[in-house]
Amino acid sequence: MTQITVGIVGYGNLGKGVEKAIRQNSDFKLAAIFTRREPQGVSASVPVLHISEAEKYKEIIDVMILCGGSATDLPEQGPSFAKMFNTVDSFDTHAKIPEYFAIVDAAARENGHVSVISTGWDPGLFSLNRMMAEAILPEGKEYTFWGRGVSQGHSDAIRRVDGVKNGIQYTIPVDEAVAKVRAGENPELSTRDKHLRDCYIVAEEGADKLRIEKEIVEMPNYFADYDTTVTFISEKELKDKHSAMPHGGHVLRSGTTGDNNTQIIEFGLKLESNPEFTASVLVAYTRAAYKLAKQDQTGAKTVFDIPLGLLSPKSAEQLRKELL
Amino acid sequence: MTQITVGIVGYGNLGKGVEKAIRQNSDFKLAAIFTRREPQGVSASVPVLHISEAEKYKEIIDVMILCGGSATDLPEQGPSFAKMFNTVDSFDTHAKIPEYFAIVDAAARENGHVSVISTGWDPGLFSLNRMMAEAILPEGKEYTFWGRGVSQGHSDAIRRVDGVKNGIQYTIPVDEAVAKVRAGENPELSTRDKHLRDCYIVAEEGADKLRIEKEIVEMPNYFADYDTTVTFISEKELKDKHSAMPHGGHVLRSGTTGDNNTQIIEFGLKLESNPEFTASVLVAYTRAAYKLAKQDQTGAKTVFDIPLGLLSPKSAEQLRKELL
Repeated sequence: MTQITVGIVGYGNLGKGVEKAIRQNSDFKLAAIFTRREPQGVSASVPVLHISEAEKYKEIIDVMILCGGSATDLPEQGPSFAKMFNTVDSFDTHAKIPEYFAIVDAAARENGHVSVISTGWDPGLFSLNRMMAEAILPEGKEYTFWGRGVSQGHSDAIRRVDGVKNGIQYTIPVDEAVAKVRAGENPELSTRDKHLRDCYIVAEEGADKLRIEKEIVEMPNYFADYDTTVTFISEKELKDKHSAMPHGGHVLRSGTTGDNNTQIIEFGLKLESNPEFTASVLVAYTRAAYKLAKQDQTGAKTVFDIPLGLLSPKSAEQLRKELL
Repeated sequence: MTQITVGIVGYGNLGKGVEKAIRQNSDFKLAAIFTRREPQGVSASVPVLHISEAEKYKEIIDVMILCGGSATDLPEQGPSFAKMFNTVDSFDTHAKIPEYFAIVDAAARENGHVSVISTGWDPGLFSLNRMMAEAILPEGKEYTFWGRGVSQGHSDAIRRVDGVKNGIQYTIPVDEAVAKVRAGENPELSTRDKHLRDCYIVAEEGADKLRIEKEIVEMPNYFADYDTTVTFISEKELKDKHSAMPHGGHVLRSGTTGDNNTQIIEFGLKLESNPEFTASVLVAYTRAAYKLAKQDQTGAKTVFDIPLGLLSPKSAEQLRKELL
């Protein structure tokens, strides 16, 4: 079997997830992990090197999997790595995707590389399903529900409230709203109708809990438009019960065809580990990047541009026989 | 806007569904419908011609949508139309797909055409989701549930029972089985555990209903391995309550990643009209066939080979901006 030699850039939750996902796919070989930290302090299953040494692996690594964050890492690393390697990333700042696409596309194209950008589940699998359902049912309405899962942005926001020592926020879809969409009722749903926000807070000794709760529940943009619950817990309980990283959600499209027949398409994920799942999607798209590069394609690609068969280790013939 | 000029071959439920779906997509123009019947007897929104006249439309029609059946129509029409036109079809005899692919691929390739075969929802969207989920979660188990919907094969089988005047059979997923899979229990499910079979029978005057019920419930291959219910109704009730063609189902994959975290991917359809939905999928893939032909691609293609972005009337740039 041809093995695809890959490297990981960034060794946080996502990078560790990619390392684990590669172990489940025998057609991959992990060559090295690159980090901005002092590599001596990092232990992993393969050599860990400083990110500045990546260039030495230009002839060894087929695809570099970029596991940095979208705020500051990827805008810099995406184009700079696309000059040296085929790349895959999970750039997820929706509003900046066109701009990010353009800079990575230029860098990849000039250097004869393929760069799959913005994959994962949202953007990624959710985007694919929104797009496909809209193309199939042009007369219809789309609904996306996220959760139950941790929102990093909202967790950060509650931790900035005075008197909060630590905390976590779960986004939860409203069951009744999901049920109405599934029943083909095509409801008009406000922000409040769609999601609940559930906060678990460790307060600082002697802090005014009522004031903290009020400040969170009324926080504009983050919580004011939602039904929000705040529960105070101990640091131990936070660690014991809220260290997992579950997530998921549903993309639904409810449309009509012909003589007003209701047709519903639904895609859903229920994930015990959000970073491990995102990592698994990245690894499947790494296989696609490798195959596209073998076909001499170049430039930036998104999930919309890639035939799904390329995600599989199976040949086109095998896929037709076994999975069509 | 560039319009895609299409024709329909075969004017049964699926062909009529395609005619309706085209009305929902302003980038399509339906030129003509071709039938094996006497065209004078058929009324439609565009000219209806005998199938033997299709060749005259070689320069007019961009893509021909083949709406015949898989048993006898498509094995003959698939390759013969691929010689003259770009085509799209819903060939659904799973076991014969490799053979059908080969003959259509040869005909299309030799004549510089693109032929999208075996699209719809199963094969089609369900196949895509099975394949994608397997590629993302290689360690896992796949479950497909069909229904609630009419099975044509099983309805035919009950109508062949002596004393049965008319009848219909619904395949129904077992709720508890679906719930176990969704809960990540990874159950081992027998045929009986997964689906129920629900039959509505119009008996002939004076027929022995107990014997009919026994014969249906014990029928090998079709019913013996299932929990089957038989309800006798009047011809009027059959017509009033069982003329719709609902269907749907769920494709689930329950897998594990990393430190034994359960990850569940689900795709589901709930369709009030099975033929109209299949027709809508065919029309979206017709758009893809047209774009592939414009890229000078040739040969047979399946859902695995086609970038999903091609299903949309939107440009790649627009898709990245609005839907990624």
